[in-house]
Order: sequence, then structure tokens, then C-alpha cells
Amino acid sequence: MQFKPDAIVYLGQMPSAPYSMKGVEEAIYTQHDNILGNLTTLWAMKEVCPDAHLLKLGTMGEYGTPDCEIPEGKFPSGASWFNQNTEHVGNLGGMTFPRQAGSWYHQSKVHDTHNVEMACRIWGLRSTDVMQGIVYGTHIDEMEEDPDLRTRFDFDECFGTVIHRFCSQAVAELSLTVYGSGKQIRGFLPLKDSIHCLELALENPPEFGEYRVFNQLAYSQSIARVAIQVRDAALSVGIQATIGQTGNPRVESETHKYAVSCNNLKYLGYTPSYDLPTDLQAMMTKLKPYKSRILAYRSAIDPKTTWK
Amino acid sequence: MQFKPDAIVYLGQMPSAPYSMKGVEEAIYTQHDNILGNLTTLWAMKEVCPDAHLLKLGTMGEYGTPDCEIPEGKFPSGASWFNQNTEHVGNLGGMTFPRQAGSWYHQSKVHDTHNVEMACRIWGLRSTDVMQGIVYGTHIDEMEEDPDLRTRFDFDECFGTVIHRFCSQAVAELSLTVYGSGKQIRGFLPLKDSIHCLELALENPPEFGEYRVFNQLAYSQSIARVAIQVRDAALSVGIQATIGQTGNPRVESETHKYAVSCNNLKYLGYTPSYDLPTDLQAMMTKLKPYKSRILAYRSAIDPKTTWK
Repeated sequence: MQFKPDAIVYLGQMPSAPYSMKGVEEAIYTQHDNILGNLTTLWAMKEVCPDAHLLKLGTMGEYGTPDCEIPEGKFPSGASWFNQNTEHVGNLGGMTFPRQAGSWYHQSKVHDTHNVEMACRIWGLRSTDVMQGIVYGTHIDEMEEDPDLRTRFDFDECFGTVIHRFCSQAVAELSLTVYGSGKQIRGFLPLKDSIHCLELALENPPEFGEYRVFNQLAYSQSIARVAIQVRDAALSVGIQATIGQTGNPRVESETHKYAVSCNNLKYLGYTPSYDLPTDLQAMMTKLKPYKSRILAYRSAIDPKTTWK
Repeated sequence: MQFKPDAIVYLGQMPSAPYSMKGVEEAIYTQHDNILGNLTTLWAMKEVCPDAHLLKLGTMGEYGTPDCEIPEGKFPSGASWFNQNTEHVGNLGGMTFPRQAGSWYHQSKVHDTHNVEMACRIWGLRSTDVMQGIVYGTHIDEMEEDPDLRTRFDFDECFGTVIHRFCSQAVAELSLTVYGSGKQIRGFLPLKDSIHCLELALENPPEFGEYRVFNQLAYSQSIARVAIQVRDAALSVGIQATIGQTGNPRVESETHKYAVSCNNLKYLGYTPSYDLPTDLQAMMTKLKPYKSRILAYRSAIDPKTTWK
């Protein structure tokens, strides 16, 4: 075999939670492609390049919103399980932290997590699994102004994530649709941080046999706060945006803890950036020329896919 | 829709760990059929009979052999996570207990666990997921002597489980092949107990929206002890069996804790039976007439599938 990669960056998965909830065909498509594509990759690595580093994307959504701190993938060393009488029951250190995913898409990533962890444990492969927050932005400096390098930008209810949807709605003079109370807290990071973190992971591969998890986010905040920031940034580029509300189409907790441990990337030198207002202004400035195109797909923005 | 089942007993899965480890085709086949068959069933229930009770089989192998007690599927209410300084970190009660499966087959069951748990949590379906130990035996009283009701009996390295393989080897005058040290501990139960437990589950369905887990086994013991009991039972039916040993073809811990909580079925009235010696004698007596058929497939018994 002539081709022996040092690393495999595996980003090729179906990425939409609402799409996976539309119906049985979409759910099957999601789990079929994501789980089996990943499983085939593990077998290919075992047979061709068992020393390579598999860098893949999970999602912060794997964890759901548990009533406790969210560690990086596993219970840290020294973790113990105590019962209600504060008696020690057993050791948990190194075990996979329980996942509570909320869509068939998020479940597909949970299944990948378990499959990759086993391939590392049993076959001695090595992998970095990145539990990524919600990425926003369309540009990194390395792209310069080359239009061929521009990223895909989705703003529909299925594939468009919340910041992209809100910015598109603002530009098109549609109300920003906050789902439910907007008190849901999520982790976010700009595209440039996401790419930088992948770079850090590749430059610092895990040990052979190690299944390493990074929680990758720059900061956490509520969806309601995101809406306010989009409205304010819109105003600064001459757009009068309004914040609307809609019943939550998803089944999810709207009041919850969100204490995420994310030190592994910081140990490798990652400094989270926080310039959401500037990023929002830049994004909306770039979107403005496409206002009519957004309006042409207006019916694709409002949520139609429900979880029930 | 005319047909509205009260319960769905779902036993239709690819059940072999070694088969799933043979190669990429077998691994894909296993996860494709098991995960997507189960996922399709969940969608069918949602659309046709959301009140029905899904009774399905998981496996004790989902848990692996953790360094702590194995609860019934979830951390019990009141469970807490403490760090190495004995400080309280958070609440774990009700969260899925971490799984450490050791084959692609066992992983497929772990993935089912997560998918079914979500269908109960989000769609309000209800399910009993039975983490079953190793079932042995070919007969329950209700079959009487009707040969058409006899169960399938596998004794090959892939689909034959340890007690069935040992009994077949004894009858065919082949050494009983203990994998590795034989110190591995597993949970076992006779077929009659397995069927009785399914009956108890059906008679006592869970609440709507409940994902209920039963750890189903009559007793736990080491593989080496199973071999000794097969040898002794063989002697009592006139067969001189010898215990052999082979390198362990699997990647698994051979020295480990195995403290399984299994109270949920006992609450419903299950009394584990323990008459392995009698069962072994009965099984080998029934197998004796087929000695030549076992010998004809002799090459299928010794382990050829390795985990590496």
C-alpha cells in the first residue's frame, strides 16, 4: 500500500439534528451514513495505517444538559461513585461519561464515540474526538478574499445553526426566531478557533491506543443573549432587527446547568477568542448583498420539523 | 391501522460477538442490521402504536467488566460523582451507566440502548431492555417432546456460547477449550429462566415514557468453573471429558470485578434457578445421539476469529 496517512481528518458526516428527526427515512440515512462511514474508516485504519491519528468531530450535543459538570469525554482519574448515603460504591475514572443526546443525529455521534473508543482500546488505534460547540462564521484569514475558498453557509431550519439563521433573518428583515424561552445555554466558537483547534490536535497527536476527547468551545451563553447580540450588531451596520419567538419545536430542557470542562485544548495552547459582536457585524455586512436570495428561501427558515 | 400490538418482543438481531469481529463486512452487517432494525421499530411504534411496550434484548456484555458495581442500566437515584479529594462534583442519578463493550456486536447493543432510551425520553415510548447473561439449554417444559419446537443449538466458535460449546466438545470427546486463564466471570441463566423473565416483563409493563433495564442472570461464575462442571456432569452420564486450554482469541480482562445488581426482576417475582449440573446432564444426554454430526463440524469449534 503506497498511501499511508499520518492523520485522517474525518469531517464527512450528516450534520443536522432537525433533518434526522423529520422521519424514518432521514433518521435511517443519518445513522447509516454516520455510524457505518466511521466504522469503515476504523477498519481501514486497522488494516492500512494503524499508527495514524484519527481526528474526528463529535458534538457538545452528545452530552445533553446533565445536572452536573460535563468533563472531557470520560470521568477524570480518581472519580468515584457515591450512593445517597455518601458511601463509596466504585471507581469511575476513565469510563465514558454518560451521554444524553437529543436527536438521531446527536445519537449517531454518541455511537461513533463508543465505536472509536473501542477501536482504541482493543486495536490500539489512536484518536482525537472533538466535541464541538456551535461554529459560526464564513471566513478565516488564510482564505484571503478568494471566493472559491468560501465556506458553505446554511441558513435554513435544518442545516442552518442558530447564529447563521439569526444573521440571515436580520439581513432579510425577518424577526429572529428564538425557540421557546431562549434560556437554553450552548457553547459557541468562531470558525477560525475551530480550525486552529484541529491544527493543535494534529500537531500534538495522542499516544498509541489513546482515545482523547476535547470539548471545543470558546464560550457558553444563552440563545436569548445571542439574539440580543445579533440585534445590536445589526443596528451597528444599519439594520433594524426584531427579536421574535416561536414555540420550541424540539424536546429539550430550557432551564439547565451548563458547566463544561474544556482544558485539554488550553493545555495545548488554545486561547479562546471572544469577538462575537465584531464577527456578527462582519458576517451581516457580507450577507447584505444576498438579501433577495435569503428572502427567496424564506419558507425554509421558520421551524417546521418538530421533535414529537 | 387494524393491527395495534400491546407489546413488541424484539429478539431479531445478529447475536454473535466473534462473527462481528471477523472483518469489515461482518462488522458492518452486524451494526447495520441491529441498529437500523431497532431504529425502524422505534419509528413504527411512534407512528402506529406509541402505547405499546417494547421488550428487547440487550446483553450483559454491554457493560464490560468495570471496576465497580454494575447497576441496572442507569445510575440509581441519589448517585453522586465525587472527585479524588472526596468533593461532590455532581449528580448522576438516572443517567445511563457507562458501557464498555468489547466487540462490534456488543457495541451494536450499546447503540440500541442509547436509541431506545432517547425514544422513551423524547417520544414517550416505553421499553424494557433486558441485559441478558449467557443463556443455555434447549428445552422448556412448555415444549413437551414436540421436535418442531426444539430451539436452535449452535456449537461453533461464532454462534455457540460457552456452555453449548463445552457440552458439544465433551460429547464428541474433544477437549473443552477454555480461552486464556478461564478466570473471566460471566452471568448465566437457563433458557427456562430467560423465558420466564420475558413473561414477567410483559405482565408488568413499564410506565409510559419509561426506559426500564433488567439485568437478567441467575448466577455469575468463572469460565474455568463452568469447564469443571461440564467435565463432572459428563462423567455422570458416562463421558470422560478433558479440559484443555487455548490462547485467548479475544481482547478482554481475565481478572476483574463482577458485582452485578439484578433486583428489578426479583421485585417482580423472579427466583433464579440453579441446577446447572442437572441441566448439563440433560443437555449432554440429548446431544449424545448427534456425536457424529458434531464431529463432522469439528473444525468450526476451535477459535479462529481473533480480536486483533
